Amino acid sequence: MAVRLPRGFRAGATRAGIKPSGRPDLALLVSGLPAAWAYAATQNRAAAPSIHRGRALYASGKPLRAVVVNAGNANCATGERGYEDDRRMAELAALRLGLSPEEVLTASTGVIGVPLPVEKIAQGLPQIGLTPFAEAFAEAILTTDTRPKVAEAEVAGARIVGLAKGSGMIHPNMATMLAFLVTDALVPQEALRAGWRRVVERTFNQVTVDGDTSTNDLALLMANGAYGEVPLGAFFEGVEAVAQALARMIARDGEGATKLMVVRVRGAATEEEARRAARTVAGSALWKSALYGNDPNWGRILAALGNSGARFDPMRVRILLQGIPLYEGGVLPFDREEASRAMRAEEVEVLVDLREGQGEGVAWGCDLTEGYVRINALYTT
Amino acid sequence: MAVRLPRGFRAGATRAGIKPSGRPDLALLVSGLPAAWAYAATQNRAAAPSIHRGRALYASGKPLRAVVVNAGNANCATGERGYEDDRRMAELAALRLGLSPEEVLTASTGVIGVPLPVEKIAQGLPQIGLTPFAEAFAEAILTTDTRPKVAEAEVAGARIVGLAKGSGMIHPNMATMLAFLVTDALVPQEALRAGWRRVVERTFNQVTVDGDTSTNDLALLMANGAYGEVPLGAFFEGVEAVAQALARMIARDGEGATKLMVVRVRGAATEEEARRAARTVAGSALWKSALYGNDPNWGRILAALGNSGARFDPMRVRILLQGIPLYEGGVLPFDREEASRAMRAEEVEVLVDLREGQGEGVAWGCDLTEGYVRINALYTT
Repeated sequence: MAVRLPRGFRAGATRAGIKPSGRPDLALLVSGLPAAWAYAATQNRAAAPSIHRGRALYASGKPLRAVVVNAGNANCATGERGYEDDRRMAELAALRLGLSPEEVLTASTGVIGVPLPVEKIAQGLPQIGLTPFAEAFAEAILTTDTRPKVAEAEVAGARIVGLAKGSGMIHPNMATMLAFLVTDALVPQEALRAGWRRVVERTFNQVTVDGDTSTNDLALLMANGAYGEVPLGAFFEGVEAVAQALARMIARDGEGATKLMVVRVRGAATEEEARRAARTVAGSALWKSALYGNDPNWGRILAALGNSGARFDPMRVRILLQGIPLYEGGVLPFDREEASRAMRAEEVEVLVDLREGQGEGVAWGCDLTEGYVRINALYTT
Repeated sequence: MAVRLPRGFRAGATRAGIKPSGRPDLALLVSGLPAAWAYAATQNRAAAPSIHRGRALYASGKPLRAVVVNAGNANCATGERGYEDDRRMAELAALRLGLSPEEVLTASTGVIGVPLPVEKIAQGLPQIGLTPFAEAFAEAILTTDTRPKVAEAEVAGARIVGLAKGSGMIHPNMATMLAFLVTDALVPQEALRAGWRRVVERTFNQVTVDGDTSTNDLALLMANGAYGEVPLGAFFEGVEAVAQALARMIARDGEGATKLMVVRVRGAATEEEARRAARTVAGSALWKSALYGNDPNWGRILAALGNSGARFDPMRVRILLQGIPLYEGGVLPFDREEASRAMRAEEVEVLVDLREGQGEGVAWGCDLTEGYVRINALYTT
């Protein structure tokens, strides 16, 4: 089923020959009107040129018109040349679209340390046909993801569409989480930026696949105003719903994952502590392994909570797994077989009540499997 | 070959029936003289009663005479009863040794959430024969470790002996790193504590197996003065050498590990940043997987450095693997096959020069293998 982009947005993709597989790997996302935008990027100190360029554009405060993405080459750790190549990719996309380069954001994902094949990008860009639909773009930005990630919402007549790729890894190096949300709502830039920061910290920053943060991660929200004003509260609820749907898809599609883990923490002293506690549980290698083995090993959840830095009293904390109470200041009499059976699901929920305050937070992760190790070790040499 | 404890120390162990395997699981380490001591314990908020008790003893500033350790039951998350049982274990050991309970430190490792079988401890303690040798104690404190961990040093006539167990995990919950160093050197308590803090942060705190921190970790240094004074500088070098040897053994014996990873970072802005950078590389699931697969995937090392928070310029940083330069502000022309062959070793060294300052640090880890996942997932239900 085709997902239509919000008014004024078009997208498309082509096979430029960057991915060795020959699959689509070069994509454009374009707004007919200058768009307000909000942006969050990786904190990795070895961030790619596209991230440095994006930050500089963002600081300028000028509106954005387009994004050009290549999948297959992260253009990271490529020296001075990497910065020139990234600029060149923006110039070529601007030329193709009749824009100025400062209106075009670049994003790259794929191999680290290999020069960007700019000639392939130059040849590929004119071949991209732009349509009002999301699919071609969503497909082309993937790397080792097993499926495209698209989500949408409607708020008071305005539309929000989100497109993402996950944190799958490709030989010989890490790939990246990229998320692009576009809307035809009219939202002032300041409000857009403040709202996006909050959404990102509650959604994409709460996804953990293996604890490694890429050099190329970015999450973008573009609002071109083609529809008009909408109530801001409802608007950001819609944005968060789309971002959260993508976050879940990314976690579920983690490398080698067989199931989605959802960790909900409530009763934390602060919202930040709740999110941190949820993330720490979702990221625990021990608990992720137990999840894979359908082992209702609450001790690992408790130990991860203890490592998170969130305040709580181990004599009061409650832990539920798939709705089954396992621990409340001491282990509860639960049926281990039943709990193990309940873990044989596509989605497993851990619910923790820290009983310290009102803070709530959710994190999304996946199980740690032999498949993860194989993908990242045995299949790469 | 028997390792003799420093003058005035004796140790022993027995089979108390706490480990389901029936192997030795209850151990005593005793000083004939009151000993100055220094102690570092887990920061985990769900820390076990033995840790809480140890902290209180430590705060009292009184000398220590003995340690009683059980392996097989962590006595953690066992409610109020856990605190009583821990006190009882200290009382029983004190009774056996003719000491007061405040002179006896407790340590536990093993299953979380199962009440401590105090009766078995009461029956086991009188069976323990004390000798001047380290082996029985070193054997009894193991859980899923595959071998005992003992190291020794001599400094100006005084002896230092270290005994440890690693961070292997047992069903159904995590086990723990325990390290006990004993010496017959005479060292004032204040100096001992300051020096030990520094040694622990440079050795045991630089070991990472899977990023999870146990509820029961502790590292103890006891100095009974039976030999007499020694130069403090040389003394702490000896202590660090012993602690480092144990740290390496613990990393090498990580669950499912096939090799030891040593990460040396130099040229960091500060020593703390060097240690953090080394730890982050040693802990990266992506790099640990590549290490397992003998894949000289420097991009993952660079990305981990970028995540560590240590300051550096990706255009200047140098990365060597097994002495082979792979990256210097850009990928170097190296022979991938040769680098991969060099990784087929019991010990693999990553050397990073951040070129920011004078800070140096080392971390120890291991590869991430299918064996790790199996031990922690498939073999536990």
